[in-house]
Amino acid sequence: MANLSSEPQPLLELVEALRRLPGVGVRTARRMAYHLLQHDLKAAEQLGQALTHAVERLQHCEKCNGFTEIAICAMCDHPERDATLLCIVETPADQNSIEATHGYQGLYYVLMGRLAPLEGTGPDELDFQRVLKRASDGIVQEVILATNFTAEGETTAHYLSEALRSRGIKVTRLARGVPAGSEIEYVDAGTVAWALMERRPT
Amino acid sequence: MANLSSEPQPLLELVEALRRLPGVGVRTARRMAYHLLQHDLKAAEQLGQALTHAVERLQHCEKCNGFTEIAICAMCDHPERDATLLCIVETPADQNSIEATHGYQGLYYVLMGRLAPLEGTGPDELDFQRVLKRASDGIVQEVILATNFTAEGETTAHYLSEALRSRGIKVTRLARGVPAGSEIEYVDAGTVAWALMERRPT
Repeated sequence: MANLSSEPQPLLELVEALRRLPGVGVRTARRMAYHLLQHDLKAAEQLGQALTHAVERLQHCEKCNGFTEIAICAMCDHPERDATLLCIVETPADQNSIEATHGYQGLYYVLMGRLAPLEGTGPDELDFQRVLKRASDGIVQEVILATNFTAEGETTAHYLSEALRSRGIKVTRLARGVPAGSEIEYVDAGTVAWALMERRPT
Repeated sequence: MANLSSEPQPLLELVEALRRLPGVGVRTARRMAYHLLQHDLKAAEQLGQALTHAVERLQHCEKCNGFTEIAICAMCDHPERDATLLCIVETPADQNSIEATHGYQGLYYVLMGRLAPLEGTGPDELDFQRVLKRASDGIVQEVILATNFTAEGETTAHYLSEALRSRGIKVTRLARGVPAGSEIEYVDAGTVAWALMERRPT
């Protein structure tokens, strides 16, 4: 006898589509689909529309490569931002973190990734030529590398640093050290080692 | 100076919509949105369409309450299923689990939830009148309660059992016991206690 438990096609397609979200397996996708369809139809509609709108309307800013609805985003276009400083970050989330400090007035470039040769992400995939061109506009005087302090982020920073320096551009990197408010006893040895090496006069 | 890190509206709306998925907080929603927009635009489009299609096309089967594209689903309508047996489950996922055993030929009723008074889910929210009516069609001879063996699932089973029995319908419950393939040493005491109490002649 045929297995009749097969679910309706729109439900199967929804589960398949949800599975392509990062970190979502088939069980989670199923739970999400049942939840939306049974308990939050409005959320399902809104998410459907939000996805369609985002795909249709969002583009990459011509200057910073971040997401924007217009050719050049409000930040890149703002007269009060300091165009001599260019901070290179991996993702818009990293950019948000730096903005949240309220301590940076310069501009950004969002790589939308990091060098990961094993995953096939090289300098061409990240369009490093565009990064170098952006940094060589004659206005930028310092590039701040704010990629993550992971193996891949460090590799990305190293690669960009070499390329930018060879073009005569001043390059700096975010400081490494003991996090604010933390007790040295509980900080990992690698971080303490860095903090020692990069100790500063008071 | 104004904070210019505010992201474009379609991106914010997408993050908000993703947050309404069960188990998804703002950071995960952001990561999902960036991933879809940066690395998998096709998945974003497909998910958007799948949601719209599912909302438009899926309805509840008039007999079993499961998701279907038509008034009565293929299973409820199938002549080879045994209409004298009705298995009551909490969710379509539970129904799939039972179908996967290939050991059940009867029909189902999907509650789409379980009694959870603290969350405001009572007999009316689950439309127990409809369950009772379905079980009282004169064809069903046995109702198998296959709600979960959790506090809420047990409460649901107990409530349904009382209501069905008072209508003269035979009610059974899935057996509780030691899972197949497991060693008693590693099974929790509650399960072993049940397995002892419900021991069967060999």
